[in-house]
Amino acid sequence: MKILIINSGSSSIKYQLMVMPENEVICSGMIDRIGLETSNISFKTSENAIQEIVSVPTHKVGLQKVAEMLLDTEKGVIKSTSEISAVGHRVVHGGSYFSDTTIITDEVKEKIKELSELAPLHNPAHLVGINVAEEIFSEASQVAVFDTAFHQTIPVEAYKYAIPNYLLTENKVRVYGFHGTSHKYVSEKAIDYLESNSKIITIHLGNGCSMAAIKDGKSIDTTMGFSPANGLIMGTRAGDIDQSVIFYLIKNLGYTADEVNAILLKQSGMLGLTGYSDLRDIESEAEKGNKDCQLALLMNAYRIKKTIGAYTAALNGLDAIVFTAGIGENSSHMRKLVCADMDYFGIEIDDEKNQIRSREIREINKANSRAKVLVVPTDEEFEIASQVYHLLQN
Amino acid sequence: MKILIINSGSSSIKYQLMVMPENEVICSGMIDRIGLETSNISFKTSENAIQEIVSVPTHKVGLQKVAEMLLDTEKGVIKSTSEISAVGHRVVHGGSYFSDTTIITDEVKEKIKELSELAPLHNPAHLVGINVAEEIFSEASQVAVFDTAFHQTIPVEAYKYAIPNYLLTENKVRVYGFHGTSHKYVSEKAIDYLESNSKIITIHLGNGCSMAAIKDGKSIDTTMGFSPANGLIMGTRAGDIDQSVIFYLIKNLGYTADEVNAILLKQSGMLGLTGYSDLRDIESEAEKGNKDCQLALLMNAYRIKKTIGAYTAALNGLDAIVFTAGIGENSSHMRKLVCADMDYFGIEIDDEKNQIRSREIREINKANSRAKVLVVPTDEEFEIASQVYHLLQN
Repeated sequence: MKILIINSGSSSIKYQLMVMPENEVICSGMIDRIGLETSNISFKTSENAIQEIVSVPTHKVGLQKVAEMLLDTEKGVIKSTSEISAVGHRVVHGGSYFSDTTIITDEVKEKIKELSELAPLHNPAHLVGINVAEEIFSEASQVAVFDTAFHQTIPVEAYKYAIPNYLLTENKVRVYGFHGTSHKYVSEKAIDYLESNSKIITIHLGNGCSMAAIKDGKSIDTTMGFSPANGLIMGTRAGDIDQSVIFYLIKNLGYTADEVNAILLKQSGMLGLTGYSDLRDIESEAEKGNKDCQLALLMNAYRIKKTIGAYTAALNGLDAIVFTAGIGENSSHMRKLVCADMDYFGIEIDDEKNQIRSREIREINKANSRAKVLVVPTDEEFEIASQVYHLLQN
Repeated sequence: MKILIINSGSSSIKYQLMVMPENEVICSGMIDRIGLETSNISFKTSENAIQEIVSVPTHKVGLQKVAEMLLDTEKGVIKSTSEISAVGHRVVHGGSYFSDTTIITDEVKEKIKELSELAPLHNPAHLVGINVAEEIFSEASQVAVFDTAFHQTIPVEAYKYAIPNYLLTENKVRVYGFHGTSHKYVSEKAIDYLESNSKIITIHLGNGCSMAAIKDGKSIDTTMGFSPANGLIMGTRAGDIDQSVIFYLIKNLGYTADEVNAILLKQSGMLGLTGYSDLRDIESEAEKGNKDCQLALLMNAYRIKKTIGAYTAALNGLDAIVFTAGIGENSSHMRKLVCADMDYFGIEIDDEKNQIRSREIREINKANSRAKVLVVPTDEEFEIASQVYHLLQN
C-alpha cells in the first residue's frame, strides 16, 4: 500500500511516499519558504536527488509541484495519483476530540479548524495541506495523525491545571501535550534497544521542543500543555513563564493580549534572547564569545536539566534519557550542556561518543554511567505511515 | 531594643513585640477577618493569653487596638509607645529596588506602592500597615524587610525568562522569588542541624506555597517568579499554568485580562479544585471520600515532587528536604504524599516520626534514608526582628 505522508507547516511542506507494511521509502523531500520569493524544493528517490529553487507562492502550488515530480515520466515514481491509497497528515492539535488516528471527514476538518485557536501556528497550515491534498489526491483516503494522541495516557494529576473545575469539564482546558508521534517513536526504539520496559525521558529538541516521561512505554507527563507554547525554551517560543508577566505587560506596558501572545510565540525563546532563532547560528556565535548566545544556551540546558530531575521524580527512577529531533540529534554541544553535572542522576556522557554523527540509534554515555544517554533519530513520517496503514487495515 | 514586627495582610495583621538581640518575645498575636463583621484578636504574653471577638472595620482600628493592649496598665507590656525603637514590616515585593532590609522613607513607600502591580494581594496591604504604624508608633524607626531579598543570589540562567531582552533590561521582568525570609530562616536552621553547608530544598507550604533550592546557604532557584502567582498549587492561586490558557480564556471565552488574573489568583488553586481553600477542610473531606479533594491533594503533592526532582538536578545532589509553614509543619498527610515513591532520591519517610507534632526542628526520615527529611518551624517574625536589629546597629 502506497501512503503519502504530509507535514504541512506554516511556510513549508515535508512529504514522504512510503510502501507499507514494507517500510520502504520511495521518495521524500520538502518545500520550504512557501510564499517567499524563492522556495527550495527537494525530491529524493533511490535514484535521484533533485534540489530546485523556484517560486512557490502557495501550498497548493507546492503540492502540485510535488505531484508533478512524483508523476514525472523520467524521474518520477508513480504513473497515476490513484496509486496512492492514503495521505497521512500530521496534525498538531487533536484537543479532546481525537485520541486516535482518524479518517478525515468534513466534520473532522471542522474540529481541526476549531482547534486552531489552541495551535495557531500549526492547525491552520495543516488544514491548508489537507484541502490541497484532497484535490490533488482525490482517490486517496485522507487520514489525520495527531501529535496529542500519545499523551492521552497522562494521568489526571499531571494533566489537570489548578484552576476552577468547570474550565476542564466545560471548556476542556487541560494538558494535551504535543510531539506525541516523535515521543512514541523514539521511546519505542529506545525500549527495543534497552530490551526492557524502562523508565525513560525523551527530549525532543527541534524548532519546537518538548520532553516526556515514559513509564512502561506510556507517556505519563510532558512539558507542553494546553497548546505547544509552554515548557522548554524554543526557537521563538518562550516556554514556561510566570503568568503574572502577561498581566503586567497588558496592564502596565499597554500591550494587548494578542500582542503579548505574539511576543511569547514569535519574538521570544532563543530569538528573543540572542537575535537568532537557529541553534547552529547561536552555537557558532557563542563560540566566538557572544555572551547573549552563551547565556541562552545555558538557560535552555538548565530548563532541560530541571525537567530531567522533575520526570525522574515522576518515574521514581531513571534508566535512560533520549535525545531526538534536529537539535537533539545533531547538537553535541547542547547534549553536553544538558548532561553536565548530572552524575547524581547517573548521567555521565562520553565526550568522544557524543561527537559521533550518525542516523543510527546510539549510546553516548560512559560505560559505567547508571543511566543510558541515547541519541535516537526520530522518524515521524514512518510513525505516521505505520499508524495510517494499521487504521486502514482494520 | 524593643522591635515590633508587623505582617499586614489584606484582611489580617500579625504582630510580635521582641527584645533584640536577646530574642525575647514579649508579646505576640494577630487580628484576622479585618473588615468583616466580627474579627478575632489574640494577644499573648508570658502571663496572659487573651482572645477577643470584636468589630475591626479597618487596619487602623486593628493596630490601635493592638497598641491599647500593649499599653494596658494591667495586662500590657509597655508604658509608652516610645519604648518601641523600631517597627519591622514584612513586605512581599521589593522588585529590583531592594536587595536588602531598608529604613522606610516616603521614597521607599512610593516604590512599594509602585510594586503593588507585581504583588497585588500583598504590597497594598503592607502600605496600609506602614502608614498606620507611622501614626501610632511615630517615634519608632519604620523598617521594611523584603521577601524577595534572599533570592537575589539566584544566577541569571535561573532568574531570566526566555522573552525579548528589553523586557529584562528596561522593564525588569525576571524571577524575583518570595517567602525569602522564611526560606532563609529554615535553611539556616537546617544547615545548623545538619552541621554542614549542604544541598537543601526548602518547601514552604502555607496559604502561599513556594520552594527554593539552597546551595552553600544561598538560594539558587525558587518556584515563584515575577510575582507570587506561579509555581506550586496554593490555597486560591493556580501556580504554574500554560500561558496559552490565558489567551484562550480572553479570546474564546470572552473574559477580560483582569478577570482571568482574578480567576488565577483568587478562584483557583485548592479552592478552584475542591471548593475549599483551607487544607484542613480538604484533608478531612478527602478522608470522607471526596474525590475532588483527594485529587487536589495528589496534584499538589505531584507538583512538589517534581520540583524536588528539578532542584535536585539544579543542585546535582540532595542532602535534605525541609518542610515548613502552616501546612508543611502540620500536615503529616501532605508530607507523606510528597515523600511517597521518592526512594530514588534517597527520600524515605518514617511514618511514626511523621506523626509527631512539635514546635521543634525534627527529622522524620527513616534512619537509613540517604536524604534527610526535616520539619523546621519557620519564624519569619524572629528573622525580621533580627534583620531590623542588625540594620539599626550599623
